Amino acid sequence: MRATLMHKARDVRLETVADAEIILPTDAVIRITRACICGSDLWPYNDGPNRAGQAMGHEAIGIVEAVGSAVERLRPGQLVIMPFAYSDGQCLFCEEGLQTACIHGGFFGNGGEAGGAQAEALRVPLADGTLYPLDTAPDEALMPGLLSLSDVMGTGHHAAVCARVTPGASVAVVGDGAVGLCGVIAAKRLGAEQIIVMGRHAGRTELARELGATDVVAERGAEAVEKIRSLTGGFGVKAVLECVGTEQAIATSLAIVRSGGAIGRVGVPHYEALPETRLAFYRNLTISGGPAPVRAYIEELLPDVLSGRIEPGRVFDRTLALDDVAEGYRLMNERQSLKVLVRP
Amino acid sequence: MRATLMHKARDVRLETVADAEIILPTDAVIRITRACICGSDLWPYNDGPNRAGQAMGHEAIGIVEAVGSAVERLRPGQLVIMPFAYSDGQCLFCEEGLQTACIHGGFFGNGGEAGGAQAEALRVPLADGTLYPLDTAPDEALMPGLLSLSDVMGTGHHAAVCARVTPGASVAVVGDGAVGLCGVIAAKRLGAEQIIVMGRHAGRTELARELGATDVVAERGAEAVEKIRSLTGGFGVKAVLECVGTEQAIATSLAIVRSGGAIGRVGVPHYEALPETRLAFYRNLTISGGPAPVRAYIEELLPDVLSGRIEPGRVFDRTLALDDVAEGYRLMNERQSLKVLVRP
Repeated sequence: MRATLMHKARDVRLETVADAEIILPTDAVIRITRACICGSDLWPYNDGPNRAGQAMGHEAIGIVEAVGSAVERLRPGQLVIMPFAYSDGQCLFCEEGLQTACIHGGFFGNGGEAGGAQAEALRVPLADGTLYPLDTAPDEALMPGLLSLSDVMGTGHHAAVCARVTPGASVAVVGDGAVGLCGVIAAKRLGAEQIIVMGRHAGRTELARELGATDVVAERGAEAVEKIRSLTGGFGVKAVLECVGTEQAIATSLAIVRSGGAIGRVGVPHYEALPETRLAFYRNLTISGGPAPVRAYIEELLPDVLSGRIEPGRVFDRTLALDDVAEGYRLMNERQSLKVLVRP
Repeated sequence: MRATLMHKARDVRLETVADAEIILPTDAVIRITRACICGSDLWPYNDGPNRAGQAMGHEAIGIVEAVGSAVERLRPGQLVIMPFAYSDGQCLFCEEGLQTACIHGGFFGNGGEAGGAQAEALRVPLADGTLYPLDTAPDEALMPGLLSLSDVMGTGHHAAVCARVTPGASVAVVGDGAVGLCGVIAAKRLGAEQIIVMGRHAGRTELARELGATDVVAERGAEAVEKIRSLTGGFGVKAVLECVGTEQAIATSLAIVRSGGAIGRVGVPHYEALPETRLAFYRNLTISGGPAPVRAYIEELLPDVLSGRIEPGRVFDRTLALDDVAEGYRLMNERQSLKVLVRP
């Protein structure tokens, strides 16, 4: 079968590898029908992979092809959503809905122990706990939205949950990437009244407005802080969705949140320490977030995707064949594409 | 009148000062009937005050002596609880119950703009929003408990709220000082099942057990972390109440909280940055806390103090006359007293 491997920075290739197969009784093998490229895949694309030849991709929907002897809840032929982390569905953390902390779990693609989803097929460990089967065969037009539940939409939702977005809240979304845009969708869905998106890519901020953003702040640094204060009566926003992960992004987040507010961070942090901790204390800020337990969120978000109430599939602005996956990386890295959907 | 002034480190004196009087129409003057010394008063006692001659004390109950012309909700003769921060009771933040972020507010004693409560009387700014009047005249034995609502009990409760203590939770309380002990009371009151107090002062940890602690960990550093993991099935606790404020205390807190857990910090941080931010991210930790909005919490905690369901007054293990306030500082600083109550 063919799969996407990252050999070194900027060297990502579709190659022929051994077919995915059942190894453990709890495994399933799925045929990937839709996969995509994540903003986090661009870190190894620029800085090099965890190890040479690392299998890439952690977001997919697919069809179950085979199940191990211990798999009880899945059967061949089912359409499934594959979260970016695998999980047993039974441990303390899974029961609490934090599948990304599963005692026996792990991650797909560059982050992790399992294979990559930018491929024709994939072995899924702990299949019963990991895969979310869909009983119906949804319309083709809904596939991008369903695919988004494997990571990007669940991650935007996690940012909003961690930032404690409530009805009527003022919200800022730091970052106009696909996660940021899903953060806009999530904030609107949770009833936020003011949703300020921070970004300077006109196409993306325009889409953000269509998805629910009420204001766009293209400024950065001190000017951005000033602008957001002026948009919020001088106080800053109640909730910040930090969807970037850089030191500047977290510093901006801390500067634009008002006393008693919360920052939900879902951008993988590329900084060591959280700055301004005394200020955060005196202002009673809450800092939360991490890898989203998207498996838990599918249940909540799926009906809204199926009904069309939310349209996270709109973050995919380009569809490529699996053959062209390397071109997809290039397009996203050069910000010519917001998020690339890949069809094996 | 007489009031406690801090001139320099270790130099705290009861002196005669100008009588407290109404300056603004929103002021009240209260005669202090009970005040106390806070662990945070020991920072200036050791390191020197914000300014020489700083008035000390921010916790009190008292009797209203006079009110300004704009005061509507108070009348002379009323018994009142005085939170450690003053607040207008009307702004955005006060309405949300975060009076310690009041737009027009400030702090009593060494921290702040207003006078000190370790005195015979005190001018209270924004009296309507600040003071909590009691309609009944409670039993004398309840006075220490009522006094604790001006800071220490509300602060312990804030730690538990910020750490998201829920029924059945496993909780660790970092620190066996008066705030830590009130944290134990708060955690138990909120239904925690396992309450581990970290401290090595036998008298205090014994009291912690009486107040609801299920386990005591006297170890520090790596040994303490190991011990707490062994007490919690290897995972750590769901909620940490950080009641110290040192770099070691926050580092320990981050090490003993389990994935998806929360740290409520109420110890004024004597460190600049929050360490291990990537680890905190990957483990989906929540870090929250700050100066407790005790004004908001009085409403919730008062019935339990009046009924005797909680006994936060037990953290006072010594009562001194105001004349002996300097001796009170010495006793607390040498850890001969847990918390000193001062009677003018």
